[in-house]
Amino acid sequence: MNTTETSVKMVLDRWFGSIKNCNSILESLTDEQLEKEIAPNKNRGIYLLGHLVAVHDDLIKLLDLGDKLFPELFEPFIKSPDRAVAEIPTVTALRGFWSKQNEVLSAKINCLSVEDWFQKHTAVSAEDFAKEPHRNKLNIIITRTSHLQYHTGQIVLLK
Amino acid sequence: MNTTETSVKMVLDRWFGSIKNCNSILESLTDEQLEKEIAPNKNRGIYLLGHLVAVHDDLIKLLDLGDKLFPELFEPFIKSPDRAVAEIPTVTALRGFWSKQNEVLSAKINCLSVEDWFQKHTAVSAEDFAKEPHRNKLNIIITRTSHLQYHTGQIVLLK
Repeated sequence: MNTTETSVKMVLDRWFGSIKNCNSILESLTDEQLEKEIAPNKNRGIYLLGHLVAVHDDLIKLLDLGDKLFPELFEPFIKSPDRAVAEIPTVTALRGFWSKQNEVLSAKINCLSVEDWFQKHTAVSAEDFAKEPHRNKLNIIITRTSHLQYHTGQIVLLK
Repeated sequence: MNTTETSVKMVLDRWFGSIKNCNSILESLTDEQLEKEIAPNKNRGIYLLGHLVAVHDDLIKLLDLGDKLFPELFEPFIKSPDRAVAEIPTVTALRGFWSKQNEVLSAKINCLSVEDWFQKHTAVSAEDFAKEPHRNKLNIIITRTSHLQYHTGQIVLLK
């Protein structure tokens, strides 16, 4: 295994490890717990779960791996803050989306080759990418792992 | 820039970006705010700040970059949970440690070559490292960035 292959492995291991960690926290929480605020006047667990699914859905597009699975989550969970949209899916529904998405996303991620990870993501132009080769698909995983950890540190407070 | 160099750049950019983000949140909080619990009956901001300094101090050793700057923080901020040790440094003192540590650590990190990052960290044996080359110094930065993000997501709740 060369250093490039090792780098890809480390980044993907961290992503999958972070998903697994978040998952086990979600599984340890009841639906009622997830409906509570993580701290007084802060986001509810249900909002953060929807937010994670919505952000990871965007990852499918950024990695050029197809269409979003749940495009309807953009409006209530990315564009809007918690409680701004009255009708949102239930915790049970969101758990199902999260689970389905992880299944689909991990299958797609595992199909990419080491070379693929260093290709440009879909939100950067070919011109900019030529100057900034770090704006690649692997970097999307690196930044989204940070994002996932940030919110996992909040969801865990509901325990 | 080859793919290995790009990988190192992406990981270090994420580390320094995460430090910067945490830093700006810390600077936006008063000492009084940092003395509060992040959520009812959870860790206080002061504990998380001390915990981050203590964990990053350990990083200096793991990367084989010298001795810890603040070894006295291990006992109250890693070995013990919040409030278990009565005498801990003040928020003002911890802010100073955090700032000093980031200065020292970034200078040390910037001295490592791309090759250095793929060498073993100090907590893995040469024998194990031969079989598991991903247990290298760069991986320490990857996992500690996750850790930092996790707690940053908690500290921000004090705003």
